[in-house]
Amino acid sequence: MEYLQQSFSVRFEYKTFFTSGLFELSNTGFNDFIAADSTSASIKKILFVVDQDVLKANPKLADQIRRYFSIHKAAQLIPEIIAMPGGELIKNDEGFFSRVLQIINQYNIDRHSYVAAIGGGSILDMVGYAAAVAHRGVKHIRIPTTVLSQNDSGVGVKNSINYFGKKNFLGTFVPPVAVFNDDQFLLTLSDRDYRSGIAEAIKVSLIKDAAFFEWLEANADALVARDMPTMKYLIKRCAELHLNHIAGLDPFEKGSSRPLDFGHWSAHKLEQLTNFKVLHGEAVAMGIALDTVYSNLSGRISVDEANRVVNLIKKIGFEITHPLLEVTGDDSPILIGLQEFREHLGGELTIMLLERIGVGIEVHEMDAQLIKKAGEILKNEHAALSAV
Amino acid sequence: MEYLQQSFSVRFEYKTFFTSGLFELSNTGFNDFIAADSTSASIKKILFVVDQDVLKANPKLADQIRRYFSIHKAAQLIPEIIAMPGGELIKNDEGFFSRVLQIINQYNIDRHSYVAAIGGGSILDMVGYAAAVAHRGVKHIRIPTTVLSQNDSGVGVKNSINYFGKKNFLGTFVPPVAVFNDDQFLLTLSDRDYRSGIAEAIKVSLIKDAAFFEWLEANADALVARDMPTMKYLIKRCAELHLNHIAGLDPFEKGSSRPLDFGHWSAHKLEQLTNFKVLHGEAVAMGIALDTVYSNLSGRISVDEANRVVNLIKKIGFEITHPLLEVTGDDSPILIGLQEFREHLGGELTIMLLERIGVGIEVHEMDAQLIKKAGEILKNEHAALSAV
Ligand SMILES: NC(=O)c1ccc[n+]([C@@H]2O[C@H](COP(=O)([O-])OP(=O)(O)OC[C@H]3O[C@@H](n4cnc5c(N)ncnc54)[C@H](O)[C@@H]3O)[C@@H](O)[C@H]2O)c1
Ligand SMILES: NC(=O)c1ccc[n+]([C@@H]2O[C@H](COP(=O)([O-])OP(=O)(O)OC[C@H]3O[C@@H](n4cnc5c(N)ncnc54)[C@H](O)[C@@H]3O)[C@@H](O)[C@H]2O)c1
Ligand SMILES: [Zn+2]
Ligand SMILES: [Zn+2]
Repeated sequence: MEYLQQSFSVRFEYKTFFTSGLFELSNTGFNDFIAADSTSASIKKILFVVDQDVLKANPKLADQIRRYFSIHKAAQLIPEIIAMPGGELIKNDEGFFSRVLQIINQYNIDRHSYVAAIGGGSILDMVGYAAAVAHRGVKHIRIPTTVLSQNDSGVGVKNSINYFGKKNFLGTFVPPVAVFNDDQFLLTLSDRDYRSGIAEAIKVSLIKDAAFFEWLEANADALVARDMPTMKYLIKRCAELHLNHIAGLDPFEKGSSRPLDFGHWSAHKLEQLTNFKVLHGEAVAMGIALDTVYSNLSGRISVDEANRVVNLIKKIGFEITHPLLEVTGDDSPILIGLQEFREHLGGELTIMLLERIGVGIEVHEMDAQLIKKAGEILKNEHAALSAV
Repeated sequence: MEYLQQSFSVRFEYKTFFTSGLFELSNTGFNDFIAADSTSASIKKILFVVDQDVLKANPKLADQIRRYFSIHKAAQLIPEIIAMPGGELIKNDEGFFSRVLQIINQYNIDRHSYVAAIGGGSILDMVGYAAAVAHRGVKHIRIPTTVLSQNDSGVGVKNSINYFGKKNFLGTFVPPVAVFNDDQFLLTLSDRDYRSGIAEAIKVSLIKDAAFFEWLEANADALVARDMPTMKYLIKRCAELHLNHIAGLDPFEKGSSRPLDFGHWSAHKLEQLTNFKVLHGEAVAMGIALDTVYSNLSGRISVDEANRVVNLIKKIGFEITHPLLEVTGDDSPILIGLQEFREHLGGELTIMLLERIGVGIEVHEMDAQLIKKAGEILKNEHAALSAV
């Protein structure tokens, strides 16, 4: 058949900034970014959508933002600061997504203007999706306020909302124009949300960087004690490993390989089954424990190393398993979750396991009996693992 | 401020095929494409969404598709062929978009499977948008059935629906995995729809390719007589010019420059004001006439060349102006449209005018008095132009 060949490359560039007190008047970094990010002579407007809990925890934030832009004028602030609830709810109820679109329309935010989101991964995912599709893409700035979003979700290229009761059913691959990680936001996080984000650091260390895993082991106590310099290092290194991975072979995930989803296949099912009462990071921690013990049982990672992984997860304060992860029969939810994941991937399963700490390996089959056994070992406080 | 720099490139490749009788059993091109387009060992499903008018004009099409995939098995056909109305309606009513999402969900179409759309630019835009956001992007195949979609909209990288009464308010830049232009579909087009697509060929010739403009002048009679080899050449050359432009500097239109929107600023307003009773190509033809005469009045293209442009537009059978394009005062719809377009671009206007045939030039201001005068000249059958 006769044809014309189309081929072109699109370059994507953005910075993840690290700062403290982003909207203090003396901190000109945000304004400097906008001043430098000029693509035309147009007036640049900026709209803020902020996580309600972040506003509650920082009652002066809205006024601080308004004062900042009254002095620093690279962008014209839309004076109404939009407050919306955080958490998974905001991705489940399409009404919030529609409202962001409606506000973008109302304030005539165009392709040279900015929609900034301040909050956890949930609100960033939802606002990022709205920004990606309005006018085929207005500029999106992310200001993540949780450990998880500062070290993982906020620095990546994906956005989404849930639909038909399915996690992330709608979304796009569209990078933000900039990410601003401000450590001050972390001070007001609950212990659970603070801890939850550490799971992604354990995950990425296990598949990418053994030295970082050792650092996590050595610094577990400081992390539990919420020592700030320790957390700042964790976030920066974890963000860097995620960014490097994205910039690698397949930024927009065209293939089936998803190494960054290590530990996630069971975690997604568990979040959904508990209606998101188990947090993403908590579920990922249990998923990592499961897939690590499974890796050992299926002849990969050593008993010693597997024990180190499970011990680190416990030391950080995570549960290592959940009743809904138990295999009691062929119709156990976790096996159904595996089947759903296979279908989601289009028939061929691809799951990351551990060869050793810092080195992952992909497999295309999982053995139900070994999943069952791994669950039992974890249920018994992984005492049995050493005996295997 | 400390930062991590992210930068990567994403390569996009797709072919625009030219064929006759795409789903005839002996034509293996479509099946060959899918067989070669393997990214994993997964089963590849294919779902078809088809323009109702195309089905009406080709009553055997659905059965033909089912027979084709019963013999050629690179993809597993979803036996239900989804029929939906064509025309702008399908982009205006969000219900059609939601229904495509619902069907993608119902049939478990995943990121390794295909959603093919057969129809005019409207249904391709809507289905393309649904495919781009479901699961953050399932594979989309375009089978354009109008002159306009075969030579312009169908071969490009944009998709969209209308929202808040605004044309293309929602959408993305996501290329299809393939485009199949089948000339047999053109046989059943109404004369109006057939003619309408020729406007984009005139447009692209004027800003990119003087030789193609001369070819259009020489072949105007054959085009009006619907001579097929002539139309096939027009479509291929026009598609090629569009594809080359997209592959150029700014595929995802990050800047303000939109040379392919020559003649479109007034056309978009006219379509909207007439509730899409004036077709896109008809409005573009009038928009080209207006901006050509304006180009002459503002000291650019010569009288002779401007007359050639307007004469070609008339010869193809287009109207050259419309009462709603007249400037009678400061609040004339066309001037309001110009203001809206300026706001849409973020404050700085960028409009393509003609230096001469084949060579465009961008300006950032338009003079209301000259727009008024250009409209009057066209209203008087551009008789006055020669006298300027
Ligand atoms: N896009 C991606 O690549 C990606 C990757 C991983 C996870 N995610 C998504 O991220 C979401 C989870 O994000 P999350 O863990 O950041 O949780 P979250 O956004 O749901 O926030 C958790 C809670 O903390 C509150 N909160 C946020 N910041 C606060 C602060 N500084 N002080 C006090 N309270 C604060 C929120 O209001 C919410 O109640 C999930 O939907 C997950 O799917 C996306
Ligand atoms: N995405 C882009 O880059 C881009 C570019 C230009 C235009 N567009 C969009 O394309 C749309 C216009 O597309 P169009 O001009 O193809 O019109 P259309 O899709 O609205 O179709 C016009 C009419 O022709 C009918 N039809 C289609 N194919 C037929 C056939 N083979 N036989 C008989 N009837 C047939 C349709 O049912 C409809 O009634 C507009 O919404 C416009 O905004 C998009
Ligand atoms: Zn995660
Ligand atoms: Zn057009």
